Amino acid sequence: QVPRGNLETIHHRALVLAQVRKWLDRIQFKEAFECMRKLRINLNLLYDHNPKVFLDNVETFIKQIESVNYINLFLTELKEEDITKTMYPPLEPSSAPEQLRSDCKKVNIICDTMRTAMENVNASKYCLSILTSHVKKSPPELEIALQRIRELRERAPANGGFTSVEEALKYLLYLVDVGELYDHSLGTYDFDLVVMVAEKSQKDPKEYLPFLNQLKKMESNYQRYCIDKHLKRYPKALGHLSKCGAEHFPEFLNLVKDQSLYKEALKLYLPDTQEYKTLSDAYGEYLIEKHLPEEAGLIFFRCGAFQKALGAYLISGNWKQALCTAAALHYTEDQLAGLARNLAGKCIEKRKFGDAAVLLEQYAKDYEEAVLILLEGAAWEEALRLIYRYNRTDIVETNVKPSLLEAQINHLEFLEAQKVAFSHHQKRLSVVRKLKEQAQNEQQDLEAPHCPESDLFSDASSVVTTASEASSKYSHSNSRISARSSKNRRKAERKKHSLKEGSPLEDVALLEALGEVVRSVDSLKGEVHSLLKYLVLFGYDGHAQELQQSFQETLHLLEHSFPEIWSSDVQVFPANPVLGPDSTANSITAVYNQQKWVAPAVQEPELFVPPKLNKNIQWKLNLLQ
Amino acid sequence: QVPRGNLETIHHRALVLAQVRKWLDRIQFKEAFECMRKLRINLNLLYDHNPKVFLDNVETFIKQIESVNYINLFLTELKEEDITKTMYPPLEPSSAPEQLRSDCKKVNIICDTMRTAMENVNASKYCLSILTSHVKKSPPELEIALQRIRELRERAPANGGFTSVEEALKYLLYLVDVGELYDHSLGTYDFDLVVMVAEKSQKDPKEYLPFLNQLKKMESNYQRYCIDKHLKRYPKALGHLSKCGAEHFPEFLNLVKDQSLYKEALKLYLPDTQEYKTLSDAYGEYLIEKHLPEEAGLIFFRCGAFQKALGAYLISGNWKQALCTAAALHYTEDQLAGLARNLAGKCIEKRKFGDAAVLLEQYAKDYEEAVLILLEGAAWEEALRLIYRYNRTDIVETNVKPSLLEAQINHLEFLEAQKVAFSHHQKRLSVVRKLKEQAQNEQQDLEAPHCPESDLFSDASSVVTTASEASSKYSHSNSRISARSSKNRRKAERKKHSLKEGSPLEDVALLEALGEVVRSVDSLKGEVHSLLKYLVLFGYDGHAQELQQSFQETLHLLEHSFPEIWSSDVQVFPANPVLGPDSTANSITAVYNQQKWVAPAVQEPELFVPPKLNKNIQWKLNLLQ
Repeated sequence: QVPRGNLETIHHRALVLAQVRKWLDRIQFKEAFECMRKLRINLNLLYDHNPKVFLDNVETFIKQIESVNYINLFLTELKEEDITKTMYPPLEPSSAPEQLRSDCKKVNIICDTMRTAMENVNASKYCLSILTSHVKKSPPELEIALQRIRELRERAPANGGFTSVEEALKYLLYLVDVGELYDHSLGTYDFDLVVMVAEKSQKDPKEYLPFLNQLKKMESNYQRYCIDKHLKRYPKALGHLSKCGAEHFPEFLNLVKDQSLYKEALKLYLPDTQEYKTLSDAYGEYLIEKHLPEEAGLIFFRCGAFQKALGAYLISGNWKQALCTAAALHYTEDQLAGLARNLAGKCIEKRKFGDAAVLLEQYAKDYEEAVLILLEGAAWEEALRLIYRYNRTDIVETNVKPSLLEAQINHLEFLEAQKVAFSHHQKRLSVVRKLKEQAQNEQQDLEAPHCPESDLFSDASSVVTTASEASSKYSHSNSRISARSSKNRRKAERKKHSLKEGSPLEDVALLEALGEVVRSVDSLKGEVHSLLKYLVLFGYDGHAQELQQSFQETLHLLEHSFPEIWSSDVQVFPANPVLGPDSTANSITAVYNQQKWVAPAVQEPELFVPPKLNKNIQWKLNLLQ
Repeated sequence: QVPRGNLETIHHRALVLAQVRKWLDRIQFKEAFECMRKLRINLNLLYDHNPKVFLDNVETFIKQIESVNYINLFLTELKEEDITKTMYPPLEPSSAPEQLRSDCKKVNIICDTMRTAMENVNASKYCLSILTSHVKKSPPELEIALQRIRELRERAPANGGFTSVEEALKYLLYLVDVGELYDHSLGTYDFDLVVMVAEKSQKDPKEYLPFLNQLKKMESNYQRYCIDKHLKRYPKALGHLSKCGAEHFPEFLNLVKDQSLYKEALKLYLPDTQEYKTLSDAYGEYLIEKHLPEEAGLIFFRCGAFQKALGAYLISGNWKQALCTAAALHYTEDQLAGLARNLAGKCIEKRKFGDAAVLLEQYAKDYEEAVLILLEGAAWEEALRLIYRYNRTDIVETNVKPSLLEAQINHLEFLEAQKVAFSHHQKRLSVVRKLKEQAQNEQQDLEAPHCPESDLFSDASSVVTTASEASSKYSHSNSRISARSSKNRRKAERKKHSLKEGSPLEDVALLEALGEVVRSVDSLKGEVHSLLKYLVLFGYDGHAQELQQSFQETLHLLEHSFPEIWSSDVQVFPANPVLGPDSTANSITAVYNQQKWVAPAVQEPELFVPPKLNKNIQWKLNLLQ
């Protein structure tokens, strides 16, 4: 429309934009629009220049622009992006007023405001623009647009004749894909509309008419169900199908199972109905298949399928709920005892001795077995409680004392083994660190020969490098993974650190192993305290003394090694000599380069922080000191 | 003895040492000794030069040196230090054979070896040297030395006459303080020896004779007790007093109480005796005074003082042991129920609802109260177990459901409050960091004007500085404190970090508070999971959904803020631009100086590592998603 060719005027864009902005500030939309259209300036500027002014003056805008085509042009060109920030930033950024806008809804806001204004000004004249405003929204309001066309048809005779149904539909098909529009017309359940759209489309009537005729014969809810199912709108389909009566329930259940729509289906029936129970049953089976037996148990239990609930709880090991379910099933004492023994076995497998003892004592009525299990679990306090409750102090001699003495021996052996492992790893760590330091120095000598300071700081940096040098091999691949998955990966990697001598991450693996020893010893505090108490209670003061001393020594040994192993200063910061009077830009740079190697190590920062010891437990017995 | 004055020969020390070493290598001790004595070379060299050779040739050494005085000189000059490492290092260090020696026992080893050799060569000739060898040991063997003198006196007539008792005692008094020797002579319980020492000392006979006479009249054990007590050797005193019969037990008990020697005293009596019980009783009272009621309970219980044991266990809150004690006291059902209610009250105070429920159900026979307590503690599973065990499902309607709904509301409110607090702290943290960064930049501009890079790296270093700047105020005083006490101090300091706006450690306090929020929310996972299950079980799917969503959102909100709050990269390492092509030695140094500020922050490294979330708990219900 604009004359092109050699004679076309050349405009300086900045000057043009300045002029457009002036026009917009003066609410001269017409001038601005004409100019922008001619010079292909992005029309989003009309809004983005000053959203508030635009929205306040939408009617003026429409009246000034007037042309349906132009308005359609503006609407179709709308984008979520704010082009004053991207394409046409203002010359004086500070002068732009700070506007609060929720950008992600910009297009929807403009469409809705424009539509309201157009309806006020002249709904029938702007019919096509109104359709555009529906289609441009996200998600597009195709059903509403189709509805409008139907209204148009209904009002057709009275219509002044601005836009024919024909025309409007054609325009809509120009904006939207035929198949999509056909599906949406079906979705209105309005067959006239469907036929209208189908006729305008390239579809073969032989293809859609039989389907439509078949649908027309159906009962309304079932018809809608079939349409929804055809459109893969399964939750909606279930809603309609549920209203079709009990004879369609099998079909309903099949669809639920096919699409795993149990949650949605359950909402359509009241909890007391048979359908609800049948659905719950199916849902429970589904959850068991998905390895969620605990949730399956909930679903079974609340619909009264107690037998199945019990099964699910047995799988999940949820013994308290299993007992509740057994009670709901009116189990006899004997049945309950059998169940309890079964559950107790599972608890023992998981080393939950306390739970097993409750089961044995209270449900299987076998407190003797309960005491033995408690002794196995080193739950001396609870074992004695049962012994005194049932007045069976003879068990103290026959079982408690031997168990205590055995536990004492086991603890001493464990502590010894941990000490040996710790010293072994610690020595090896210092060897590995020295080796890495040497390698580092050699490499430095190659890179920066005649650098007299390198000896000075190698001491400090070596510890850092050990880990970093190794993990840097992983770093560049890691950087591409998202934070979440890299976290998972790290977990897997953790186990991959090899303690094998000479493996590239050996020092990291050693740090890990050392931390593991510390944590495993520290976690014994409560257990040791309890063992000490009961050794003393039964007069084994010597045994108790020995254990207390051994534990004390082990803890001291570990703690005293913390500074050497986890010295955070050495690890993270270069030593001061780097900045001595003799340092040069080169020497400092060399240290810096070393440091950069370090960064990847920070991916596992917890390995480089000394393990936290639990200082709150007063495990020591004063009377043994 | 050596002629002194202008004519004294000047010897070059290194040459002399070389000659001495040569003599020692050739086992020419005599020559070496004479030379060393004359030129005042430290006599330890005789041994330190080659310990093994010396020890193997001790008899030769004695035979060559021969003089008692010289040997005494050598022995008195002995020190633990290895003078080949301190005073006279060898010229060629590598040539010195690597010797395994446990240095801390050097003097004792020499004394013992020398003594054995002297006894072989001529015990009576070297009598004084033998005494010296006893006195030089650490601790000095004064009793044995005294014993030797007594032996000397007994053999006096047969003695060839090398050394008189007189002489030996005089020599000993020259080596050791009179008072000390007198005390040790008393400690041999040998009155002849005591009198001998006393006579040689300056002591007034009026002062010691009455005391000695009084002692002589006593029964042997009581006499020894009195001496031990006089010498403040209380454990030994107790040993002797315990053999004096029952009539002295009150005196024994008094001494035990006076000196708090309960542990030692108990070892002197068999557990079945009345004395043992009386002592245990006193020990228990003492432990209660020392605020160790649990240990007091042990002591009371094992001596059969059950009533007192029960009292101690009630104080310590050790309810299981209290019940055992009650059983030992043959409590009636009613008494037991009363005790259980009392104990349950204490458990509830400590929010140990599960324990309280066991007490109420099993001992007070009040399962209804137990269920209510369990509901208060949100122990839904256990509450339902009891409800079904006693077949009282009516309580589900009256109490469980209202409790569940209340808990849901409480959790939602708590999560909301935590979210608000978190956002508040996070915003403030970013403000504080910006302020510190500005302050940092300003300071830098003052220190290094015209440093063009300062803008580039200020971004990266700011986060570091925030904390460091503040903690540096503490660092120099902290550095003097030992690792252990500084740990304690840090704990106290932790609580001192003030959240007050503008406080110097505000950013550290904010990090702490943010970590606290994260931990408190994360720790809810188990509780929320359980609540969700029981909400679903009773059909409150909507409530469950709401809670699950709120919890999920809160966790996401927290986790997504981790990088901003705890970005360890930013915190520890400078940004790369520091080493850009324009960097100068000055600019790099400036950054380094910034970094040095950082180091103190590492004293609380755990604050700068993001809190660890428990990823092992699958708290979400699949059926609510």
